[in-house]
Amino acid sequence: MSQELVFAIAQAQAAYGRCLDEDRLEDWPDFFAQDCLYRVTSAQNIRDGYEASLIFLNSKGMVRDRITALRDANIYERQAYRHVIGQPLITAQTKERVTSEASFIIARIMRDGTTDLFATGRYLDSWRQTSAGLELIERVVVCDSSRIDTLLALPL
Amino acid sequence: MSQELVFAIAQAQAAYGRCLDEDRLEDWPDFFAQDCLYRVTSAQNIRDGYEASLIFLNSKGMVRDRITALRDANIYERQAYRHVIGQPLITAQTKERVTSEASFIIARIMRDGTTDLFATGRYLDSWRQTSAGLELIERVVVCDSSRIDTLLALPL
Amino acid sequence: MSQELVFAIAQAQAAYGRCLDEDRLEDWPDFFAQDCLYRVTSAQNIRDGYEASLIFLNSKGMVRDRITALRDANIYERQAYRHVIGQPLITAQTKERVTSEASFIIARIMRDGTTDLFATGRYLDSWRQTSAGLELIERVVVCDSSRIDTLLALPL
Repeated sequence: MSQELVFAIAQAQAAYGRCLDEDRLEDWPDFFAQDCLYRVTSAQNIRDGYEASLIFLNSKGMVRDRITALRDANIYERQAYRHVIGQPLITAQTKERVTSEASFIIARIMRDGTTDLFATGRYLDSWRQTSAGLELIERVVVCDSSRIDTLLALPL
Repeated sequence: MSQELVFAIAQAQAAYGRCLDEDRLEDWPDFFAQDCLYRVTSAQNIRDGYEASLIFLNSKGMVRDRITALRDANIYERQAYRHVIGQPLITAQTKERVTSEASFIIARIMRDGTTDLFATGRYLDSWRQTSAGLELIERVVVCDSSRIDTLLALPL
Repeated sequence: MSQELVFAIAQAQAAYGRCLDEDRLEDWPDFFAQDCLYRVTSAQNIRDGYEASLIFLNSKGMVRDRITALRDANIYERQAYRHVIGQPLITAQTKERVTSEASFIIARIMRDGTTDLFATGRYLDSWRQTSAGLELIERVVVCDSSRIDTLLALPL
């Protein structure tokens, strides 16, 4: 039971990373529930108890708008990501939701081929099981470093 | 069913990475079918529709020859790899083959201990199920960066 | 059976990495058996057949003492790790123990936000199954690079 659920979450994580890494940004909102929360913050903010977020989107509409804005602006230098996501751990489970946590390492590949270790951290997630599979009610992306500039970058 | 298959692929991926990371290059051909295709290319090539490959080996014999050539030449600086491979996603399945995709990050460790992020990308694989386990009919290694020089390097 | 065991090991690995990455060092000894061995060495040492270790702790008490010493000394610059651990492979299995191997990549995040690829390598583990889950009888951390300075750093 737990093994099946961890498997389903791992598959959803892999699909999520693949979607972003292949620049299929328009498909990214499909991972979220209508009433979702997507938030990017830092470990330091969490430690200090700050509510501040680098990105804060609290509906699927806002998640969609972010992609539209990114595509319209188009002023960021062309870049790609590569996600590698660790095995998820289930941290709580109720009838309505499953919360899980997983480590990530994201490499960034610039147009000229330069590759660097762009971001590391963990996903704190709440998932809802639907007939179509798992959807994210909440994803808090906790970056280990406070140096992340996500103003114009791709979603994590 | 699908969970068992993903598990089997993940185990084969881990064994593949381990074989290369431990410099057991002579065992590397054993992951491939007789009539295999092994190809290394870049995301840019794929986007542009180019067939060009950095490495192109279309039989198990050629896969073996590559290792012999590498060992004979022996002019590359001593180096080791470390693969970390993400959870595979099954992208298609027929009686004859299963195709899957997985992200990878490979670090390179030079003789003097210097470690860098050597390559990131994804494996596009076709597997055949045999009585001895899974074998690769096809592995296309799509590097995110076009800067990869694989002329004399180890297989990815 | 094997799938369940690999799953259990992968979950234990993820929990282990999470414990260290969240700076819950005091919980780290709980992953070990009373009569454990924890050892950090390099691939070069293993190749040369040297028994030398960068860290050598051969009881749970020594594992605990290491954390106390680290906390007391407190002279290392504040830093955090981020583990990403590959799928484990079971290498042997008896009634008493299961041995497994897994690749790791660890990023280090300094106080100022600088992130680098700190260590890569593999865990060579022996696990004992208890009613409370898996515990480590032995963990040999084999770093790919010989440059690792673990004198005052966090456990790997």
